[in-house]
Amino acid sequence: MHAEILDVGFMNVVFPKGRIKYTGKEIEPLWAFNMFDVQKDSIVAFRGGMEVKIENMKDLKDVKEEGEFKIPIKGDDCIHFIVEHFDNPDLKMIYLRQRILICIAKDTIESFGVKLDREGDDLYCNGKKLSVCIATRGVSSAKIHLGINVNSKGIPEHVEGIGLEDIGIFDIEEVMRKIAISYAKEMEKIEKDIRKTAPLY
Amino acid sequence: MHAEILDVGFMNVVFPKGRIKYTGKEIEPLWAFNMFDVQKDSIVAFRGGMEVKIENMKDLKDVKEEGEFKIPIKGDDCIHFIVEHFDNPDLKMIYLRQRILICIAKDTIESFGVKLDREGDDLYCNGKKLSVCIATRGVSSAKIHLGINVNSKGIPEHVEGIGLEDIGIFDIEEVMRKIAISYAKEMEKIEKDIRKTAPLY
Amino acid sequence: MHAEILDVGFMNVVFPKGRIKYTGKEIEPLWAFNMFDVQKDSIVAFRGGMEVKIENMKDLKDVKEEGEFKIPIKGDDCIHFIVEHFDNPDLKMIYLRQRILICIAKDTIESFGVKLDREGDDLYCNGKKLSVCIATRGVSSAKIHLGINVNSKGIPEHVEGIGLEDIGIFDIEEVMRKIAISYAKEMEKIEKDIRKTAPLY
Amino acid sequence: MHAEILDVGFMNVVFPKGRIKYTGKEIEPLWAFNMFDVQKDSIVAFRGGMEVKIENMKDLKDVKEEGEFKIPIKGDDCIHFIVEHFDNPDLKMIYLRQRILICIAKDTIESFGVKLDREGDDLYCNGKKLSVCIATRGVSSAKIHLGINVNSKGIPEHVEGIGLEDIGIFDIEEVMRKIAISYAKEMEKIEKDIRKTAPLY
Amino acid sequence: MHAEILDVGFMNVVFPKGRIKYTGKEIEPLWAFNMFDVQKDSIVAFRGGMEVKIENMKDLKDVKEEGEFKIPIKGDDCIHFIVEHFDNPDLKMIYLRQRILICIAKDTIESFGVKLDREGDDLYCNGKKLSVCIATRGVSSAKIHLGINVNSKGIPEHVEGIGLEDIGIFDIEEVMRKIAISYAKEMEKIEKDIRKTAPLY
Amino acid sequence: MHAEILDVGFMNVVFPKGRIKYTGKEIEPLWAFNMFDVQKDSIVAFRGGMEVKIENMKDLKDVKEEGEFKIPIKGDDCIHFIVEHFDNPDLKMIYLRQRILICIAKDTIESFGVKLDREGDDLYCNGKKLSVCIATRGVSSAKIHLGINVNSKGIPEHVEGIGLEDIGIFDIEEVMRKIAISYAKEMEKIEKDIRKTAPLY
Repeated sequence: MHAEILDVGFMNVVFPKGRIKYTGKEIEPLWAFNMFDVQKDSIVAFRGGMEVKIENMKDLKDVKEEGEFKIPIKGDDCIHFIVEHFDNPDLKMIYLRQRILICIAKDTIESFGVKLDREGDDLYCNGKKLSVCIATRGVSSAKIHLGINVNSKGIPEHVEGIGLEDIGIFDIEEVMRKIAISYAKEMEKIEKDIRKTAPLY
Repeated sequence: MHAEILDVGFMNVVFPKGRIKYTGKEIEPLWAFNMFDVQKDSIVAFRGGMEVKIENMKDLKDVKEEGEFKIPIKGDDCIHFIVEHFDNPDLKMIYLRQRILICIAKDTIESFGVKLDREGDDLYCNGKKLSVCIATRGVSSAKIHLGINVNSKGIPEHVEGIGLEDIGIFDIEEVMRKIAISYAKEMEKIEKDIRKTAPLY
Repeated sequence: MHAEILDVGFMNVVFPKGRIKYTGKEIEPLWAFNMFDVQKDSIVAFRGGMEVKIENMKDLKDVKEEGEFKIPIKGDDCIHFIVEHFDNPDLKMIYLRQRILICIAKDTIESFGVKLDREGDDLYCNGKKLSVCIATRGVSSAKIHLGINVNSKGIPEHVEGIGLEDIGIFDIEEVMRKIAISYAKEMEKIEKDIRKTAPLY
Repeated sequence: MHAEILDVGFMNVVFPKGRIKYTGKEIEPLWAFNMFDVQKDSIVAFRGGMEVKIENMKDLKDVKEEGEFKIPIKGDDCIHFIVEHFDNPDLKMIYLRQRILICIAKDTIESFGVKLDREGDDLYCNGKKLSVCIATRGVSSAKIHLGINVNSKGIPEHVEGIGLEDIGIFDIEEVMRKIAISYAKEMEKIEKDIRKTAPLY
Repeated sequence: MHAEILDVGFMNVVFPKGRIKYTGKEIEPLWAFNMFDVQKDSIVAFRGGMEVKIENMKDLKDVKEEGEFKIPIKGDDCIHFIVEHFDNPDLKMIYLRQRILICIAKDTIESFGVKLDREGDDLYCNGKKLSVCIATRGVSSAKIHLGINVNSKGIPEHVEGIGLEDIGIFDIEEVMRKIAISYAKEMEKIEKDIRKTAPLY
Repeated sequence: MHAEILDVGFMNVVFPKGRIKYTGKEIEPLWAFNMFDVQKDSIVAFRGGMEVKIENMKDLKDVKEEGEFKIPIKGDDCIHFIVEHFDNPDLKMIYLRQRILICIAKDTIESFGVKLDREGDDLYCNGKKLSVCIATRGVSSAKIHLGINVNSKGIPEHVEGIGLEDIGIFDIEEVMRKIAISYAKEMEKIEKDIRKTAPLY
């Protein structure tokens, strides 16, 4: 698939040409390689709908609670971030990174003059849910999916959702690009920090 | 030393009674055990001055750049956070956690109605430096020190510093307690998230 | 499923209400979360039959040697322990813990006045097999199953088995609870020991 | 130093010729290589006195509690086990192995017809302390020291100690050899178990 | 299956009796245990054809590029090496070992008086491809397959292949045995080197 | 210190301006950062003498065997390679990389028309020692030093040494640059290979 691919330190930032609907298979290992030939750690950012069937969900708490709904994670227009790292076989690592990605998303959106709240890996605006997020891993890589609603169309009725446009943010492309690039820069800076730190003896 | 010790999930949150001056030795492994008998991962939060001699600095970039100054990290009144984790022998882990701690500090302070900027592990207000931070590790544990200026007294002249009181925040104790407890809760939530996540196959 | 859930340090000790037959699917990752909503490392202890088909066996040596039998691991009445840890991606870790669990089971049973022998992960009484045990892991967690015969009914004929009741132990509930709680306490104590130990330089 | 060196799987079991007094320096990394040229994981077992000064102690809880005594860990006649493993940079691993060593020591001693109690890494007989033990690690290897009293001579007065001879065990050499060899065999068996186990998917 | 099994340090070197065709299933975890009962890390070396269907290929770049061919990895007569290690859950480890295996193969073949070129994990002679290689891992073990052409029969036409016999090497058995044994000795020497090295403080 | 610094994938290849004498302190963690400000994994290649005192040696076998000599590792003119990686806390990883560096050095030198022999981490020409090498690690990084003799001046008499010039290679600079760059490219290619590999399930 065609995409704009940036080198940001040890990561690739990938902006596919055209929209992609998130269905849950994008969280599979090596999706970025298979789609865009990237052979670095990566963050792929794109816009599109979202429709994750119950059998593709990785958050088993959601599976339990939302089991009555057939397609509990849904939205007609979102921006998506798919992160993949290959560096440490511990699931905790990707959850720490997930929180950093969420904090970066929050800061980026707030720079447009709104105020959000973060609870764990969820973003809210005035108590309404702005995002969905999951982190998980396979044998060789760890993955994050973050989806941020552009508007609230198509969001399941039992979720009180809100989108970026609902809070007055219309430069969706810019938000998307800034979050992706900031995340890659943050990871790069951490790698650099590690390499200037005296350990303790 | 006397301290109030809270159990927050798998961590201890420790508030020592009385002030402690941060000199750099608090970053040493097992300082929390030696001082407060805590035998969990911990965040210790206290108020006091700060005076780190060049030979106790762990950021070797600072050591290079600040080498001309004998006590380059200094302040008369700060709140300090000393974090210690024992769970993964990878230095990167503690740097990821450091970023999360900084994001939590930023959110907490901003909840008082000010706007901060984060660059890596530094917080700024209107371009002035509000905090210092380092992460590092020894053989068995990883540590973070975060210091946030209460005011700008005693900050070396070559640093354009600012303190919480300078930006209108006077309930220092509340800021300090909220940051420490929020960090412990975040780490606890991550542990819980890990244990409800389906891995990828 | 209803269960009594104890907090013992960083672990949950879970005693389900009612009997559960062990079929091999209980060794799957996140079974404790799926059944009992536990989001800590856990040991689940219950009583019930056991019937593991050849295709659900994880010990490939048994699979080879017992391949002629369709249901080689079987018993009508056992106590079962299902352990799950999420902390280190090394399979060896869970095998070390398995040995500790077996030693604790041995000590607990011997405290009722009998003498057992341990060979690796097996317990014997007078040369007769009292237990079955396996450890394994998936991507994000490691698991142990230990089954201890209550009596010898239903044990395949080619195995010379024995049960707790055969050696004069009838307070099965107490044995079961003591083993589970002791294991969790041991793991907790190890976590504490780690956090008071000076490393070597 | 002269020693009998056995190959037991991937480990060396080392019995030095003559007595060695344990002073705390034997816990240092690579002591077994420096003394006996062993280039495998190893357990070295020997007999001799014990005298660990406060500054050589690795259990910082003991350091705190025993700080008033200059030589709090002391005994005139003990059997010692020095274990070194190089395989996983996690301190927890060696604590799990320590518990297994203690369980093996307990079983071995009990096979002489006495009954012991284990609490964490301590062995007791009738409430009297039979052993001392510590686990720790450096950058490249993890170590255990286990000392078991042969008699109670020289044990500090504030410790209620007991020795093997006090409970009727006089074949000290046999106890020592059996514990060391059983430990190495247990570790070997675990390595073998790992290599016949189907993981979970 | 019958095989000659050598103990070389902590590894088994396995030479099966008779030929085996490599189909891709030999790369599965625990194949060596299932076939030859080996319970150590192992290198299995054998001679036979090779025919890997597209769905059994692990190099996804090859899958993309060769997708038009149904059986892109093929040869009528090769020597094969199947390596399995269980010691570190990091995929990078097995790729480092893969390069060492390739270097050993190159040196061994060159000792017969020919000159080869290595590019990553491929060996060439006069620009023609002599070998195929892949490394990968599952949850508990890491694997390498190296196949070296004995002659160029059966190699797909789009690959310019060459075999050992084409470059004047006819003692195929000796090449095969030397590579396998040298690899196991190299791994053993590395284990020994680790255990005589002073770490840095 | 002034140096030419190349970016080769995730590594820096550093060629300092002017000669540097290797004394053993260059193996210390973060030497490349302290000297050249590099904040990536790195290989630094330079020419100069070598004189390592017994107390700075990391190979404890050499320390034992060479203890009678005060400066057992010595040479008047060598090319040196100092490698530093920060990615995995396992000492074995750096030993695997060390072997790859040695293989690359061998191949590079042989491309000038000579034939070398490798034994572990040593290179020989006609039975004479061409190189010295050590790998080790601290808390946060792993290091390699490889020294290759340019000539045999200054080599201790008890070592039968040989230098590149003795075997007809005079373009020392080119050898040095090729080895350093090839090593960085090899590591980069391994990182890329990892990111196109399907794991096993």
